[in-house]
Amino acid sequence: MREIVVFSGSAHPGLAAEVCAHLGVPLSPVRVDRFANDCLEVQLQANCRERDVFLVQPLVAPVQEHLVELLLMCDAARGASASRITVVMPHYAYARSDKKDAPRISIGGRLVADLLVASGAGRVLAMTLHSPQVHGFFSVPVDHLHALRELAEHFRRYDLSRTTVVSPDLGNAKEAAAFARLLGVRVAAGAKQRFADDRVQISAVIGDVAGRDLIVLDDEIAKGSTVLELLDRLRELGPRSIRVACTHGLFAAGALRRLSAQPDVLEIVCTNTVPVPDGDGKLKILSIAPALAEAVRRIHDGESVSALFDAP
Amino acid sequence: MREIVVFSGSAHPGLAAEVCAHLGVPLSPVRVDRFANDCLEVQLQANCRERDVFLVQPLVAPVQEHLVELLLMCDAARGASASRITVVMPHYAYARSDKKDAPRISIGGRLVADLLVASGAGRVLAMTLHSPQVHGFFSVPVDHLHALRELAEHFRRYDLSRTTVVSPDLGNAKEAAAFARLLGVRVAAGAKQRFADDRVQISAVIGDVAGRDLIVLDDEIAKGSTVLELLDRLRELGPRSIRVACTHGLFAAGALRRLSAQPDVLEIVCTNTVPVPDGDGKLKILSIAPALAEAVRRIHDGESVSALFDAP
Amino acid sequence: MREIVVFSGSAHPGLAAEVCAHLGVPLSPVRVDRFANDCLEVQLQANCRERDVFLVQPLVAPVQEHLVELLLMCDAARGASASRITVVMPHYAYARSDKKDAPRISIGGRLVADLLVASGAGRVLAMTLHSPQVHGFFSVPVDHLHALRELAEHFRRYDLSRTTVVSPDLGNAKEAAAFARLLGVRVAAGAKQRFADDRVQISAVIGDVAGRDLIVLDDEIAKGSTVLELLDRLRELGPRSIRVACTHGLFAAGALRRLSAQPDVLEIVCTNTVPVPDGDGKLKILSIAPALAEAVRRIHDGESVSALFDAP
Amino acid sequence: MREIVVFSGSAHPGLAAEVCAHLGVPLSPVRVDRFANDCLEVQLQANCRERDVFLVQPLVAPVQEHLVELLLMCDAARGASASRITVVMPHYAYARSDKKDAPRISIGGRLVADLLVASGAGRVLAMTLHSPQVHGFFSVPVDHLHALRELAEHFRRYDLSRTTVVSPDLGNAKEAAAFARLLGVRVAAGAKQRFADDRVQISAVIGDVAGRDLIVLDDEIAKGSTVLELLDRLRELGPRSIRVACTHGLFAAGALRRLSAQPDVLEIVCTNTVPVPDGDGKLKILSIAPALAEAVRRIHDGESVSALFDAP
Amino acid sequence: MREIVVFSGSAHPGLAAEVCAHLGVPLSPVRVDRFANDCLEVQLQANCRERDVFLVQPLVAPVQEHLVELLLMCDAARGASASRITVVMPHYAYARSDKKDAPRISIGGRLVADLLVASGAGRVLAMTLHSPQVHGFFSVPVDHLHALRELAEHFRRYDLSRTTVVSPDLGNAKEAAAFARLLGVRVAAGAKQRFADDRVQISAVIGDVAGRDLIVLDDEIAKGSTVLELLDRLRELGPRSIRVACTHGLFAAGALRRLSAQPDVLEIVCTNTVPVPDGDGKLKILSIAPALAEAVRRIHDGESVSALFDAP
Amino acid sequence: MREIVVFSGSAHPGLAAEVCAHLGVPLSPVRVDRFANDCLEVQLQANCRERDVFLVQPLVAPVQEHLVELLLMCDAARGASASRITVVMPHYAYARSDKKDAPRISIGGRLVADLLVASGAGRVLAMTLHSPQVHGFFSVPVDHLHALRELAEHFRRYDLSRTTVVSPDLGNAKEAAAFARLLGVRVAAGAKQRFADDRVQISAVIGDVAGRDLIVLDDEIAKGSTVLELLDRLRELGPRSIRVACTHGLFAAGALRRLSAQPDVLEIVCTNTVPVPDGDGKLKILSIAPALAEAVRRIHDGESVSALFDAP
Repeated sequence: MREIVVFSGSAHPGLAAEVCAHLGVPLSPVRVDRFANDCLEVQLQANCRERDVFLVQPLVAPVQEHLVELLLMCDAARGASASRITVVMPHYAYARSDKKDAPRISIGGRLVADLLVASGAGRVLAMTLHSPQVHGFFSVPVDHLHALRELAEHFRRYDLSRTTVVSPDLGNAKEAAAFARLLGVRVAAGAKQRFADDRVQISAVIGDVAGRDLIVLDDEIAKGSTVLELLDRLRELGPRSIRVACTHGLFAAGALRRLSAQPDVLEIVCTNTVPVPDGDGKLKILSIAPALAEAVRRIHDGESVSALFDAP
Repeated sequence: MREIVVFSGSAHPGLAAEVCAHLGVPLSPVRVDRFANDCLEVQLQANCRERDVFLVQPLVAPVQEHLVELLLMCDAARGASASRITVVMPHYAYARSDKKDAPRISIGGRLVADLLVASGAGRVLAMTLHSPQVHGFFSVPVDHLHALRELAEHFRRYDLSRTTVVSPDLGNAKEAAAFARLLGVRVAAGAKQRFADDRVQISAVIGDVAGRDLIVLDDEIAKGSTVLELLDRLRELGPRSIRVACTHGLFAAGALRRLSAQPDVLEIVCTNTVPVPDGDGKLKILSIAPALAEAVRRIHDGESVSALFDAP
Repeated sequence: MREIVVFSGSAHPGLAAEVCAHLGVPLSPVRVDRFANDCLEVQLQANCRERDVFLVQPLVAPVQEHLVELLLMCDAARGASASRITVVMPHYAYARSDKKDAPRISIGGRLVADLLVASGAGRVLAMTLHSPQVHGFFSVPVDHLHALRELAEHFRRYDLSRTTVVSPDLGNAKEAAAFARLLGVRVAAGAKQRFADDRVQISAVIGDVAGRDLIVLDDEIAKGSTVLELLDRLRELGPRSIRVACTHGLFAAGALRRLSAQPDVLEIVCTNTVPVPDGDGKLKILSIAPALAEAVRRIHDGESVSALFDAP
Repeated sequence: MREIVVFSGSAHPGLAAEVCAHLGVPLSPVRVDRFANDCLEVQLQANCRERDVFLVQPLVAPVQEHLVELLLMCDAARGASASRITVVMPHYAYARSDKKDAPRISIGGRLVADLLVASGAGRVLAMTLHSPQVHGFFSVPVDHLHALRELAEHFRRYDLSRTTVVSPDLGNAKEAAAFARLLGVRVAAGAKQRFADDRVQISAVIGDVAGRDLIVLDDEIAKGSTVLELLDRLRELGPRSIRVACTHGLFAAGALRRLSAQPDVLEIVCTNTVPVPDGDGKLKILSIAPALAEAVRRIHDGESVSALFDAP
Repeated sequence: MREIVVFSGSAHPGLAAEVCAHLGVPLSPVRVDRFANDCLEVQLQANCRERDVFLVQPLVAPVQEHLVELLLMCDAARGASASRITVVMPHYAYARSDKKDAPRISIGGRLVADLLVASGAGRVLAMTLHSPQVHGFFSVPVDHLHALRELAEHFRRYDLSRTTVVSPDLGNAKEAAAFARLLGVRVAAGAKQRFADDRVQISAVIGDVAGRDLIVLDDEIAKGSTVLELLDRLRELGPRSIRVACTHGLFAAGALRRLSAQPDVLEIVCTNTVPVPDGDGKLKILSIAPALAEAVRRIHDGESVSALFDAP
Repeated sequence: MREIVVFSGSAHPGLAAEVCAHLGVPLSPVRVDRFANDCLEVQLQANCRERDVFLVQPLVAPVQEHLVELLLMCDAARGASASRITVVMPHYAYARSDKKDAPRISIGGRLVADLLVASGAGRVLAMTLHSPQVHGFFSVPVDHLHALRELAEHFRRYDLSRTTVVSPDLGNAKEAAAFARLLGVRVAAGAKQRFADDRVQISAVIGDVAGRDLIVLDDEIAKGSTVLELLDRLRELGPRSIRVACTHGLFAAGALRRLSAQPDVLEIVCTNTVPVPDGDGKLKILSIAPALAEAVRRIHDGESVSALFDAP
């Protein structure tokens, strides 16, 4: 197989450029046209023949535009005789549609996985999928990374002697525990209870939080309601300080503004799996470009990716 | 197979309702939700089991939204055990992406056909596809209708004794000739010539147009540039009157306003394969709902559709 | 489509017979031979042509034997021109293999789903899958039932005025909450905490259990370790009485004996999704055959299954 | 991927040999047997393992024999572990079956594309397909060449100062215009008009032809009726000289003889995409073997093919 | 499913007509055109929608023409929305290509099976396949008939008290034994021995043939060499009379003339699975049309076919 | 493609180790876990990325366990981005299920072939398949070896001047004849006759056996009944000595003990395609590991395998 060629869709070209810089390869240009009838045409503007093609596109809003653009890119690369097509999808929004919790809906996470394969995707590089089962929705190999190392490196600058990592949800506390192990600190979790009227409410926090420096960790923050509710519970327990961290900083519907407005939240940390508007004083964005670049390099060179990114 | 169940996506519910009225079946409700992360969830809100399901969705702007919505609907119907899933797509926008006229682009018309099949579509009911070869992009049966009967019925109200049907393009003049036969009138065509600098220009009009009542017929009008250029040519030849007709009235980028502003254009006629904003004095919208309904009925009852809609 | 034909593999013929009795159709005979080289041959001994064929086989030990037998049955039915092949799999053991929690393993739940489809399965009727995402592993329609109605009907014979349903795991407490709603009682849950050394331990119980009549509810009981550990936690909180209930009573490795030996466990309730050895005084086995039979009937008759089995 | 291995079917071994000579690789032998029951057996008589296999076979009469032979060759190469199988099909006869212009016919161009893929073809190298949409009938990468450079090189030997390239059909005049640009000359086109009785007739010629040296250019000449009719129209307009050129010189049913018999036709030029009987004084056959060889080399070496063959 | 519609390709329309007469349904017309470029176009000239379509075509010479014609018919029926497409192939010539006895050949019997399925065939009705394993080459249901009943009925007119059925080949003697059981007579077989130089020769006849009335039975007679060699061996053993019978009377290369010229061969009996030239005094052709018609009826009505045609 | 990586399932790790020793590569470790619910989990414990992965697993008892284990290994290797997955299956037990000799059974040999491909197998290395047609059941390339060279080398130590190779079955005598050619000796065969009551019996032996040193050769010996019956026939003909040889020494149900107990059987020779219990004085086990290793090396290096293993 010949050399790596990297293209970016419209969703997050900055991240793609950063990945390329780390790889030491150019970001190959893409032309996206929109016709009078609103159809897209995407041209990959570099030779793909027998190349190891990587297409970078997180599924962020406008999701449907970015998805169809990505499908067109996959098909274009296939038609252009790419040797292998890897979709680098740092955020897979449809992963949240992972079960049939109402009759006659599509399990979107499975459908979109099938659409990608039908369009020519030969493998997927994903990050912090909403549930680990989503991996099984793909019929092609998936490398599933996480951003815990990047987050850990950031927090190691602080005195961690009285720190506790807090997961908003006990069901998904596995990642928080792994993160706590990385930092050598304690772990706690909110316990969502489902009441008779189907409301979900965080009824308890399990683990030591009183008088401690808390890092609230979630996989993604969209509207931020869960984290805000957790903060209410935590405050009742008298923490010493609060920081908030997540991998996917979607920050929809004013979430970032609302979180920043919490006076006792010292810092909000996320990664650049999705484009995040910079400029808020409390927000700190960590780059996962070095990690993606290293994964791309290992995929290309046939080295183990799990060796690098397995949960600690 | 059990009874017909018809659902409509967001693109053109009015047309779906009209089709259902002609069929004498209810339009079954659909719930479309958009999550905080911009993903769609579509719920078909009527039992699909062993039913003959029809999903009505022309691909009009926003095309990508409507396409993904349609794919989710197909998958939902499949998962809900529909006996057969027919996509009723009165306008297939991606049909214009039917060739690879630049390197490393997708042939979108083929890709979207494959996506529909991958999502569960078992057959397609289409109308006036941009080129007849697009039929061959589908690996499932396609019923390909046209709207010539509806257009002919409209124009028969006029004195047609001095009428000529004019195609803007000789290459696609087959439809115009069929239409002229239906009306019992003459046919003419603009001749697009491709010059050395790759500009396309209508350099001649072949057929009798001087002193005649012209009906300019095209398959679709998007920006309207071709028709406007043809009108310039025609005027030089001294027609007695001009009317403009098409199947798909996309009217993008002010096309309708520009066409209406032509003082010698007496009337603009299109069908409702796509939603057309009403209210312009010169615009006349014909309904193809009865034709679609009859085709749906014949598909369901196993009667020949070609017998009804074959080009005259 | 013609009439229902039901066959049973070797895993649980008693359940199949019971389903047939409720349906009022005969259980069609199957011949299973084992050759000298240990290969299986399965003959379906009733006409399958254009029939609506149902193959009943929960994946219980010996799982691999029962799985291959089921694949052979699917293929035999396909070759025999069955109109539709529904695998009735009240227990899908490989559903627990639903994520890639180590490098270079198969996600068995996805693989086996693909094998079933490759062998001819056209739809699946499953019960209480280990995680709801497993539904998305199948590329054919799945009807996913649960046994909460059966369990609720059983417990309604008791005075429920001081009853609390307890889930061993907060992450999966949704089913327990649904069950509690059905009974009109309270819900509680054990909170599994994952410690730095990767041990999992139930560190807390959230909800009212002191002085209450507890029904511990889990989806399946295999070795029973989780339930036994939960009982230890519950005892510390002073419950009034304890009953244990689950859908899949696998009871591997002496689990039933160990549970029955707990003096304060008044009753152990499971269903017959898998064959359970009868004869223990504390064990009560509820039949889901009526529910399966009703689902089969609705599938055959094209009636909504979700209408019947949706989570309350 | 290892070295190139080229095999030829029975259709045009001379061309394959010429391609191999240009590539500097041997033409590997093929054994074709016909059994008593008229079935074919094809043996590829050189090691294909991990090789980059090219199978040369234009679909010329007897088309069905050559097609099945080609399918058997594809399957043999697949079974022999070829690393990649490229069908070199300089003439794809079934490309003319590209639309469903009558009910209940196959779109043969799509079907044969699917048959090739089902037999193991991994890519296709085609030349001057009848319509550009046929590209979209293939689900594998297609390199679509044209012969305009070869034709241009031939005609540059003449004084081109008063030359016009004439397309028989305005609809397909794009290729003629490109050819004219290559030669730096003018372009004209016949205008086919479709009359009420469905006869097609060339009713006009658009562009300057009076007193000019004409090169009539078509993609293929089978029975030659269209060209002969065009010649009648052109003569009425007083050209100075006439030459006829095409890519695919099928010359069925005495076409070559009839064309040569036109006293004012100075020359008939075609390429060797199909085997053409030599020996007619007016016929000049140009070889596209160098172009095919260069394309094969680029495919093998992963160089851009579009860079070489894109329409000028 | 709606009614049966039967079409015939060019190979054996007489047989199709006979099958239709027995079924009491019309043979629907087919139009086969050959274009100037030797491509075929096949139009099915009766409504196929939701019909149970049967396509009758034995693969006889010219095999490739008939095969491609059949593939086009399958695809046309699929595109025309047939509910089910059954290929009625009374002679499957490519079944003899059932193993890879040389490197780099295609196993034609498997390839052609895949081509039929790729073209839309949903099931196959075959007769006396060359080896029973060929059944396994198809991924769709196959009904595999034999003609022993028809042959037996014919021979029952004779005094069978001293009759022996002789198979030319011990390896395939199973069919001869079944035939002998049907007639209540003895069975014998020639023993083909493979010598060191790879010649095959019938070195022995096992069973009683001296002084007996012999019926030599083979599945097909193409060149007739095997039967002629067997006759030499049999004559050495002093039979009382000799008759020859087979299912597929291909009679290639003068086989019928040579066999008839054997003075001690009283009769040659075959069926009409393939078109056999009538008019030789010794040849008797039995019709399998009633058997095919009954199988078609049972397939359509969902009755067991094996019940009728299983080997006695 | 990068280097060879070899894994072994549980069926025959000794053979895999031997193959690796010959190849000079390590046998990479595999972890097989069985969960409480009897499901298997298989972890390939070496990097598979872009590697040429070989999975060694003959299908021996317990066949179903070994088959599912193999399917899980294929899927794991696919998910781990293996460049190519070759299943090395020295004994394919399901090859005996190669025809549909009863209604409504699966042709297991075809089904299991499809399951392997569905799980990710890209090619198969098999040995002495029960019938050559089984090759055609696979849709991926198969290298089909035999063990005649190994057997011949063993027997060349003896005085072969009066030796005859005897096949128990004339139908399958091709292999015996090839073996005799290798040794330069004569061939004979038992003739199985099928009587009216469907019993099969060896009624004759064709060829010289009186006073000769016999080597009875079969493809596999399971229960050994056929060989034992042949021995009875042979003894009646006065051989000088008897040896028994086969490729697959399954020796089920005491077959080895019964054969060894025959006083006139001097030796029983088989290969290690399956694990054979050592320790019987008359049994001699030949290793086919060198042959498998050489085939693996040639597959990896793209050299012809047929050149090495073609029948002599």
